[in-house]
Amino acid sequence: MRAASVPISTRNAGGELSTDFDLVAVEAPLTVFLGRAAQPRVRTLGVMMRTPGDDEDFLCGLLVAEGLIRSAADIERIDGNTQEIDVTLAPHVTFGSDDTNHDRAGLGTSACGFCGRLAVEGVDALAKWAHTTESRVTVRATLVAALPERLRLHQTVFAKTGGLHAAGLFTTDGELVEIREDVGRHNAVDKLVGAALRAGRLPARQHVLVVSGRVAYEIVQKTVMAGIPMLVAVGAPSDLAVAAARATRLTLVGFARDSRYNVYTGPERIEVSPNFNSD
Amino acid sequence: MRAASVPISTRNAGGELSTDFDLVAVEAPLTVFLGRAAQPRVRTLGVMMRTPGDDEDFLCGLLVAEGLIRSAADIERIDGNTQEIDVTLAPHVTFGSDDTNHDRAGLGTSACGFCGRLAVEGVDALAKWAHTTESRVTVRATLVAALPERLRLHQTVFAKTGGLHAAGLFTTDGELVEIREDVGRHNAVDKLVGAALRAGRLPARQHVLVVSGRVAYEIVQKTVMAGIPMLVAVGAPSDLAVAAARATRLTLVGFARDSRYNVYTGPERIEVSPNFNSD
Repeated sequence: MRAASVPISTRNAGGELSTDFDLVAVEAPLTVFLGRAAQPRVRTLGVMMRTPGDDEDFLCGLLVAEGLIRSAADIERIDGNTQEIDVTLAPHVTFGSDDTNHDRAGLGTSACGFCGRLAVEGVDALAKWAHTTESRVTVRATLVAALPERLRLHQTVFAKTGGLHAAGLFTTDGELVEIREDVGRHNAVDKLVGAALRAGRLPARQHVLVVSGRVAYEIVQKTVMAGIPMLVAVGAPSDLAVAAARATRLTLVGFARDSRYNVYTGPERIEVSPNFNSD
Repeated sequence: MRAASVPISTRNAGGELSTDFDLVAVEAPLTVFLGRAAQPRVRTLGVMMRTPGDDEDFLCGLLVAEGLIRSAADIERIDGNTQEIDVTLAPHVTFGSDDTNHDRAGLGTSACGFCGRLAVEGVDALAKWAHTTESRVTVRATLVAALPERLRLHQTVFAKTGGLHAAGLFTTDGELVEIREDVGRHNAVDKLVGAALRAGRLPARQHVLVVSGRVAYEIVQKTVMAGIPMLVAVGAPSDLAVAAARATRLTLVGFARDSRYNVYTGPERIEVSPNFNSD
């Protein structure tokens, strides 16, 4: 359930008062436990606020971003309901914190502290951790400018009016592969990356990630950890997002809308034809 | 430092290519430790991504939202630099987790798990925790509609163009008391509440909080924990934000812009004059 109807006590439209109902985005807590078959619930991953739906994708994507898993085989089972979920990792997966939970900095913006650690250790740490194989894909400049509108076309009316953020995975030819939505920008990307993992698409070296909002550091981290070489955003990047994109050789495009965009890093992946306007 | 200049490799404006520089919001990690004078660094509060500046306000506000402190006297000292900060709580402040760190759910969206717990236990738990004294303040309807523009007038050009979120504390007569900005919506509110705490203004029962973005559950929680009776937002609320506002008797206004707004809860605090348009 992504949208819920709530009563409006007073709608004031320039002095005209009425009562009404409004469709708003659903937000609900999900408590997540991490463990292994022999040791269930070794850790509480946390309470995540998210728009219900695609919860398994969400958790898989989150664990990819945190560097705990790299393929669907790293997860043995996901059980639970819309309020509480147990993730059972495969025996070969180490998640570090079985006995070091106290020592780690970082349970702030991230679920397991990995992201916090990456942030503190700097963008070079993210670059080292990331898949190092270079991706040589290119995308036509006209297509880059058109991708956000293609993402919008796949959103519902409600989502477009501002209730939900969207993240879409596209081929370099501009075909939409997957789309996911959430009240949180970060969650939408986690859901998308998780869906790609479960479909066997990671690392997604031939794809482009398109997001409806702004780009903070963590969005770059999630993109890089999924092996995606290009990130196109409707909104602005932060300075740390630009620095992280540069260090990891990600192509980062911001303010992409209405045939305009800014390429902050990795311009070599964008193909500008000599006759751009009629391309 | 709130804004940084980053190079744009390619600016594409409808086919016209150029290189340029762009002003982007600064985002940097801050590692926060909690302790007492006799026991420093009992806990790592986490790594917070925030726009540097007003860090003491930020931490004070965060601790208010998490229910750890209620007045400036609850904090003995804050020492550190732009990367790492130690918060020394007064001896009388209990922060629960000295020995229960393992047992608590909730290190996801929140710093110390309190918010996660409130979310899981439901909006009734927040209502119980909140200050129970009723605030009988009222604000004129015309002023409610005008508050977001007043907030904007106090933002810099850069902030207005989308780089930073703002949170402002207003009197019921529409005077701005404080404004704080951050790349994160939640952080802007934390900074504002922390500034109010340090100025001896909490609980701020005679004030209105105005935010530039949307309202998720946690924004309502932060407002309620600061004792503020009215929240006016430019953007949309989530369903859980509306439910939490109703349970805590907060007046919640959304989509406030251009002489329009929706009152979701607590309409009794908004004074509609018989002749609204010429009020």
